[in-house]
Amino acid sequence: MIKAGIIGSTGYAGGELVRILSAHKEAEVKWYGSRSYIDKKYAEVYRNMFQIVDAVCMDDNMEELAGQVDVIFTATPQGLCASLVNEEILSKVKIIDLSADFRIKDVSVYEQWYGIEHKSPQFIKEAVYGLCEVNREDIKKARLVANPGCYTTCSILTAYPLAKEGLIDMSTLIIDAKSGTSGAGRGAKLPNLFCEVNENMKAYGVAAHRHTPEIEEQLGYASGGKVVLNFTPHLVPMNRGILATEYAKLTREVSYEEVKAIYDKYYAEEKFVRVLEQDEYPETKWVEGSNYVDVNFKIDPRTGRIIMMGAVDNLVKGAAGQAVQNMNLMFGLKESEGLELVPMFP
Amino acid sequence: MIKAGIIGSTGYAGGELVRILSAHKEAEVKWYGSRSYIDKKYAEVYRNMFQIVDAVCMDDNMEELAGQVDVIFTATPQGLCASLVNEEILSKVKIIDLSADFRIKDVSVYEQWYGIEHKSPQFIKEAVYGLCEVNREDIKKARLVANPGCYTTCSILTAYPLAKEGLIDMSTLIIDAKSGTSGAGRGAKLPNLFCEVNENMKAYGVAAHRHTPEIEEQLGYASGGKVVLNFTPHLVPMNRGILATEYAKLTREVSYEEVKAIYDKYYAEEKFVRVLEQDEYPETKWVEGSNYVDVNFKIDPRTGRIIMMGAVDNLVKGAAGQAVQNMNLMFGLKESEGLELVPMFP
Amino acid sequence: MIKAGIIGSTGYAGGELVRILSAHKEAEVKWYGSRSYIDKKYAEVYRNMFQIVDAVCMDDNMEELAGQVDVIFTATPQGLCASLVNEEILSKVKIIDLSADFRIKDVSVYEQWYGIEHKSPQFIKEAVYGLCEVNREDIKKARLVANPGCYTTCSILTAYPLAKEGLIDMSTLIIDAKSGTSGAGRGAKLPNLFCEVNENMKAYGVAAHRHTPEIEEQLGYASGGKVVLNFTPHLVPMNRGILATEYAKLTREVSYEEVKAIYDKYYAEEKFVRVLEQDEYPETKWVEGSNYVDVNFKIDPRTGRIIMMGAVDNLVKGAAGQAVQNMNLMFGLKESEGLELVPMFP
Amino acid sequence: MIKAGIIGSTGYAGGELVRILSAHKEAEVKWYGSRSYIDKKYAEVYRNMFQIVDAVCMDDNMEELAGQVDVIFTATPQGLCASLVNEEILSKVKIIDLSADFRIKDVSVYEQWYGIEHKSPQFIKEAVYGLCEVNREDIKKARLVANPGCYTTCSILTAYPLAKEGLIDMSTLIIDAKSGTSGAGRGAKLPNLFCEVNENMKAYGVAAHRHTPEIEEQLGYASGGKVVLNFTPHLVPMNRGILATEYAKLTREVSYEEVKAIYDKYYAEEKFVRVLEQDEYPETKWVEGSNYVDVNFKIDPRTGRIIMMGAVDNLVKGAAGQAVQNMNLMFGLKESEGLELVPMFP
Repeated sequence: MIKAGIIGSTGYAGGELVRILSAHKEAEVKWYGSRSYIDKKYAEVYRNMFQIVDAVCMDDNMEELAGQVDVIFTATPQGLCASLVNEEILSKVKIIDLSADFRIKDVSVYEQWYGIEHKSPQFIKEAVYGLCEVNREDIKKARLVANPGCYTTCSILTAYPLAKEGLIDMSTLIIDAKSGTSGAGRGAKLPNLFCEVNENMKAYGVAAHRHTPEIEEQLGYASGGKVVLNFTPHLVPMNRGILATEYAKLTREVSYEEVKAIYDKYYAEEKFVRVLEQDEYPETKWVEGSNYVDVNFKIDPRTGRIIMMGAVDNLVKGAAGQAVQNMNLMFGLKESEGLELVPMFP
Repeated sequence: MIKAGIIGSTGYAGGELVRILSAHKEAEVKWYGSRSYIDKKYAEVYRNMFQIVDAVCMDDNMEELAGQVDVIFTATPQGLCASLVNEEILSKVKIIDLSADFRIKDVSVYEQWYGIEHKSPQFIKEAVYGLCEVNREDIKKARLVANPGCYTTCSILTAYPLAKEGLIDMSTLIIDAKSGTSGAGRGAKLPNLFCEVNENMKAYGVAAHRHTPEIEEQLGYASGGKVVLNFTPHLVPMNRGILATEYAKLTREVSYEEVKAIYDKYYAEEKFVRVLEQDEYPETKWVEGSNYVDVNFKIDPRTGRIIMMGAVDNLVKGAAGQAVQNMNLMFGLKESEGLELVPMFP
Repeated sequence: MIKAGIIGSTGYAGGELVRILSAHKEAEVKWYGSRSYIDKKYAEVYRNMFQIVDAVCMDDNMEELAGQVDVIFTATPQGLCASLVNEEILSKVKIIDLSADFRIKDVSVYEQWYGIEHKSPQFIKEAVYGLCEVNREDIKKARLVANPGCYTTCSILTAYPLAKEGLIDMSTLIIDAKSGTSGAGRGAKLPNLFCEVNENMKAYGVAAHRHTPEIEEQLGYASGGKVVLNFTPHLVPMNRGILATEYAKLTREVSYEEVKAIYDKYYAEEKFVRVLEQDEYPETKWVEGSNYVDVNFKIDPRTGRIIMMGAVDNLVKGAAGQAVQNMNLMFGLKESEGLELVPMFP
Repeated sequence: MIKAGIIGSTGYAGGELVRILSAHKEAEVKWYGSRSYIDKKYAEVYRNMFQIVDAVCMDDNMEELAGQVDVIFTATPQGLCASLVNEEILSKVKIIDLSADFRIKDVSVYEQWYGIEHKSPQFIKEAVYGLCEVNREDIKKARLVANPGCYTTCSILTAYPLAKEGLIDMSTLIIDAKSGTSGAGRGAKLPNLFCEVNENMKAYGVAAHRHTPEIEEQLGYASGGKVVLNFTPHLVPMNRGILATEYAKLTREVSYEEVKAIYDKYYAEEKFVRVLEQDEYPETKWVEGSNYVDVNFKIDPRTGRIIMMGAVDNLVKGAAGQAVQNMNLMFGLKESEGLELVPMFP
């Protein structure tokens, strides 16, 4: 039985980790870290867990935690993981960091977009970007995994096969993404109040959102060149779900069948990526509560563009689910263990 | 492996049965009945099931079905199950009827509230009312189980211990219930359109809702006398969840501890009924997607009343989850098999 | 032109006052008070008012304000109005207090339910309870009006005719009320976050909500005796709207026509109270954005009870709209001036 | 007093026309046409109008109607207006068609995208495209106005100044639009049920939506060349509101101030178009219930693109509000009469 510790277990992503791990057959949570709720019963913070989790919340002591568990999940604000990790800890325990600290290889890019100094750049090179479908083999050997962002997981996997195969002109790629509100976290902030979000829709972080360089870096690896793109996130009045609508010029004329074959080449064997049937477009509700990414595309011969679409549950494949998928890979378990969650509808 | 057939598999309750059974270790769905979608792939009707369910929809032939499966779930409109069932079928297969056909023992009460003639009254006496926490032993021996309604499951379990122990004056009992919109079914009706339900709330079926006699009958058994009460359902702009707020005069002065002890007497050993801690009131979100009923109460010394509250997911404990719980009991399986669903939050 | 000042103009009720007054032909807002946003442009706080309101927010100085305007609206937390008002101010300006400070005649009841000391009990007797349909003539002569609460306006008007005519046994009255989330205010609190409220429903303040004594006092005046009742508020995932479902024993057998005639006796001439047609029940959406209260009832001969139902927009008839209706009465204007708002659907 | 007739008064756009006209000082509705509800009281179809509108629904007889009113609004499915209009009718009455019948000048484009034969192509040339801010002078003289679509109004006005001034490369323009569900109409269709839309988001009509050629034609006039673009609509779980996010390459390097000056050149004097302040992006909630279009933009120097954003209430500026604005222009009334609706928040 793998012993897991969670730092930041009372945020929405942390709560989802608890939900998933509580049904995982080979792992159990041993440390419910939460700086805000130390000594409070976890089930009083998340009452859905009443009579399921009996533990109380603990502080953030990563040193101590490293002696007690096999794997640490950090579901914390940017900067925290980087400020705590060190060689001694990494020698004892595997770390899956749900923050952005180790996602971006160029530390100056990280510091520029996040506006903070990186406290342990020495581990950036070692850290593996935990997008399981792309980096599976490296993840299996990793000590430190940078779990991808929610928008990025959805955005990258939606375009990945076509970027990889050179079918789209990367300089024309535009990603228009829409997210449910759990992505904004559980902080008590006015813009996230029910009455501010409900019956409303807006763009935010236009041309400035922090997931942009992460997407650019990963799609750059796929396409073999530097990528600069527009990524625009939007806030939608729903709890969960991200939908990415992506536009790019095709590099040559292609048929539906050719493009479908390319998607299938990469995803037909992937349990968690579902390439939908022709003219069926992803809907966030069809993946809710599950680890699936649903993707599809439409060729527009009038404009020479292809429209790619992808949907994920931002808390599952976009955060906690992928983190558990990474854990499974790192510990040699069945990749889907604990993740065979059937999407809930309605 | 138990073979299950579902008649009415494409309604919301039918869809939830498929979701739950697809993760059940001892049962599998062999027949996806749906008069409206015969020959259509099930995953085209519910695209969350894409790459999970590969079957096509079948018609309603209960005779044929009885030869192929061990248990039939009928998640169909009132009257259908009663019109199809017969002795030969019951000799071959167990039936769990999610409609109201066999819930009410007095056929004239059924015919009056439902406005239809009962086509097989000869089976009413035999049928067991499938409220697992109350009728567990009878369910284990049943051929035909009448799965309780969603409002009724919540309403009855919330008041049951106090009715049973004579702590409330049954003639003063009032049940004010609120339901998410999936309870209205998947029919394409104007009042259930998004723009009609969203940002709206209303009572309906006032003093006339069909779940009234079902609640009255069951609480009558519990209290040992005839019960006549007010039950008022309301439509709420959310997908899932029922909240029942129940009011009654106390028959004597009691302390919080006494009442708590009575609830615990009936529910402390029940996995799926959670008696909350003092002054924590049930919220539908804390049980969403799970088979839990959360209950609690508040004594009001000013009025001499007790306010009892309960919450369920109407599609799980209020329909498909309880149906599976009944199946587990009828087939001697672990009662919670397939039902250890952790509530999803947010 | 009446000059109005608003203390607390950046809460939801304050914002609604601004919306309504900005289209009022005989009044204009001269002072946008907001302790939290002093010197900030009002239209930056409420961007719907961009290019409509050009003013900046001011502090709470009631003394200074009294010299500049004809009427002050206090849309502030309990205690503030009572702590600021004095004889000199009241000699210069009329005050409409949207808080509870002057609603309850018995100061000890106020202090017990609100848990604060009343700072100017000498004005309680003079203050007029601003339920326009009930106290119209007194309001016309008032210097200080206590604007009723949102739940109370809805709860009282729904039962008022039957309480007044002795048709219901007041000792059996139970009010089960449901409210949209704007009633919880614009404070940045975790329980009011979108993801906590959306897809959720709960009771709160059970047997303890502060609107209880206010309803009891007013229905006591109507019925001519002391009233003690149960009032249970619930939080609903919608922005606006309150629905009250009220239960009471009838004191004698009555027909639909008799009860309808009683409602019509009180409300047929009332512009803002609509008695619906038989078997049509109030829905919050049908009054959204307007000053209407929709009411109706259903007699249940089985239980001898009557179920009364009412719906209001909590920010309009439940707060700002009624405040403006009070202002119109106090200044001799047409009672409906600025309030002929057609409900918005959908 | 202008007498107005509405054909299709019981759809959502028709209902909004009734709401707006019921508060219009110079016009009154004389004919509530609704083929589905003939002889039914209008207030039974839209109960918000109880005690406000007393009329019953009439049929679609445009001939008869033309003799009784000054202006006819057709808020009907595509094809109906074109099939009913003729020279005699147009000689008696002005027509504002909310359908697409007369929006597109090239009849073959209309027939191709809408899949129906145009029944009165002889009036296409005469019809004026009723985008008030662009075609004001022509509208004043028109007999037949083609009221723009909801998506198109928002999409066009958002990009118009930059298209007109040659600041964006029209071949790179991509419009990603998101709409509330009232845009789908009041038909009882499964995909528009509450439980299907709520907590969900999807693209639809990808590379095939009928508003595409309308946007292309109008932006073609603005830019002076043929425009072919991608337009992708999305369905959002809210009642009202459209948000358009538009991407294009800048034709030259520009500063924020230059672009702002161009927007101001076209919109500073326009009452209903609000150019927001720097870095404030349109939100649908800030225009809800009003005739405003809120627009803004962000320059992205990294990609050389500009992101333009616009928000409207699809039923007001996107349908009924603009129709009334057109009526005001056609009859020489104050353009904003009946349209000074303050956005409702929350």
